[in-house]
Amino acid sequence: MTRPKNDCFLRALARQPVEFTPVWLMRQAGRYLPEYVETRRRAGSFLNLCKNPSLACEVTLQPLARYDLDAAILFSDILTVPDAMGLGLYFADGEGPKFERPLREEWEIRALVAPDPNDRLRYVMDAVVEIRRALSNSVPLIGFSGSPFTLACYMIEGGASDDFRRVKTMLYERPDLLHHVLAVTATAVTDYLNAQIESGAQAVMIFDTWGGALSHSAYREFSLAYLERIVAGLIRERDGSVVPSIVFTKGGGLWLEDIAAIGCDAVGLDWTASLGQARRRIGDRVALQGNLDPMVLFAQPEVVAAEARRVLDDFHAAGPGGGHVFNLGHGISQFSPPDHVAALVNAVHEHSRALRRPAG
Amino acid sequence: MTRPKNDCFLRALARQPVEFTPVWLMRQAGRYLPEYVETRRRAGSFLNLCKNPSLACEVTLQPLARYDLDAAILFSDILTVPDAMGLGLYFADGEGPKFERPLREEWEIRALVAPDPNDRLRYVMDAVVEIRRALSNSVPLIGFSGSPFTLACYMIEGGASDDFRRVKTMLYERPDLLHHVLAVTATAVTDYLNAQIESGAQAVMIFDTWGGALSHSAYREFSLAYLERIVAGLIRERDGSVVPSIVFTKGGGLWLEDIAAIGCDAVGLDWTASLGQARRRIGDRVALQGNLDPMVLFAQPEVVAAEARRVLDDFHAAGPGGGHVFNLGHGISQFSPPDHVAALVNAVHEHSRALRRPAG
Repeated sequence: MTRPKNDCFLRALARQPVEFTPVWLMRQAGRYLPEYVETRRRAGSFLNLCKNPSLACEVTLQPLARYDLDAAILFSDILTVPDAMGLGLYFADGEGPKFERPLREEWEIRALVAPDPNDRLRYVMDAVVEIRRALSNSVPLIGFSGSPFTLACYMIEGGASDDFRRVKTMLYERPDLLHHVLAVTATAVTDYLNAQIESGAQAVMIFDTWGGALSHSAYREFSLAYLERIVAGLIRERDGSVVPSIVFTKGGGLWLEDIAAIGCDAVGLDWTASLGQARRRIGDRVALQGNLDPMVLFAQPEVVAAEARRVLDDFHAAGPGGGHVFNLGHGISQFSPPDHVAALVNAVHEHSRALRRPAG
Repeated sequence: MTRPKNDCFLRALARQPVEFTPVWLMRQAGRYLPEYVETRRRAGSFLNLCKNPSLACEVTLQPLARYDLDAAILFSDILTVPDAMGLGLYFADGEGPKFERPLREEWEIRALVAPDPNDRLRYVMDAVVEIRRALSNSVPLIGFSGSPFTLACYMIEGGASDDFRRVKTMLYERPDLLHHVLAVTATAVTDYLNAQIESGAQAVMIFDTWGGALSHSAYREFSLAYLERIVAGLIRERDGSVVPSIVFTKGGGLWLEDIAAIGCDAVGLDWTASLGQARRRIGDRVALQGNLDPMVLFAQPEVVAAEARRVLDDFHAAGPGGGHVFNLGHGISQFSPPDHVAALVNAVHEHSRALRRPAG
């Protein structure tokens, strides 16, 4: 049995009883931690850090050493898959990710092939193995990938975009081409996540960071359909345990019912949605993950704790039961004060235990 | 009687019968039009253009000369109010709006005063008068303002922001200070819109561009409450006609019921919401405005027309009646091809007439 000693996160995803609400934070291994900055400095660059399994393992564990978190998440980048497809990921100073060879011509799109994750993405699998060994069954390890649509945004735009003009022009003008990109990428993501599961990931999360930029109908056709295809292709059980999947479309609160119906175990929500209303809309068909505004962490620790309690109360107001994994509604800001994160994690554990205490 | 000859826009907002769906476009007087670029060149700068009533009138009318639009919207900037409060609006090349004196200290916030719109914003009222004269009752003129929260974002951040760290830190840490900014700004916006109405604006729209960045509960407390206060303070009738109000919170689709309940006549929606579902949620308590993705305009005219029909069909699928004003879900991109806009406007009129034709 390789069930982690603290399996609260896995039980919450399965909507089983828990003594407290488990908590982890998107981008919990990141620049707000001075020890992360130090490891990255040693690595020489962000990409070196991602591609070196020992250093990736080191930074994955850093937030767990500081805080009482209930899950670890693989340290990596969401753009490893297109990089392995040959697009040439690089990071221009202070500018975010870019591709040397973005998809611009039809022949480039037709030539796209899903990479063998155990070959071109071996460094990720090595990191998963090393992290699992280092975690020694203390808490579960989450594997992850970007969603096909989100990856396609970067692959087609060539980097970040504020209007998604290129990818949306293709969507409206040449939907066949975009579907080809998405189909190949969905296969690549499925293979990638399954390889992570085979290497030891005990849950997986798909980040659909840009799906929320689509119209309601385009979202269904160009993002959700591929998320569904991936979820259907994931390894369901490993070492006698279910491997749950979490799907997070930032800005997707309006589409909750549709996302909850694709077969995933949990849906991530950003802070614009009320968790209580979300539960009233979908019952306990899936667990919910979220959804504190990351900017709350800039307020004083008492405020952070009060806002964390407000999120827990919102979920609780829809009645007992249900599965809730506490998280931010987006990645933690690099400027967040580390001691405020401690206040957050402690408040989640304390208040969620109190909510479960029998009254009187 | 000063009712415009084409009052389809006003009738749609009042949920009265119309022969076709009226259409106008956010930022319709803008950089995608070569004649606008030429006028702006003559003005010397964007701010000179805003502050010169004759030139503002000229660019307001430009899209109406090209397209069969059903409303004109005052050409101005959303930041005229904080500029009149003394914050010193300027535009750095290629960077968007900035303030010379953003609100950083408590004494600066305590010193904030709502400006007399007929004094410090006289140039806007002069433009309204001149545009009404030039329109000669052809189509209605829409006045507008930014929402208090959206203005506060710029006033506190000092310019555009991608995480709203300063304004949200104030929101969580010193809600009393932010409420003070919002209260003064709500008074200023109410006075400003009423002065526009007294000068001749026949409808008003409040742009809550950044309210969608808030959590569900913070939105109600820090944005919607002030929108409600403004709507309650607006002049309701002028020259025997109702002056309808439109409230648009970008990214606010999840909160539609709450927005529809503040007393406004119409709610703007971006493209993430389905108009048909929106109508099923709120009935015809308010009219709806929107919601084509502006990026559709980069596709060929046939695709633009097909996507416009899809928006009309979506609204229509919820049953006959209801009030719909066709628009984009956000301002038109400066790179949009002008002939694609013609295809859009024509498709809206043709298809909406066809939908109203008795079957058989």
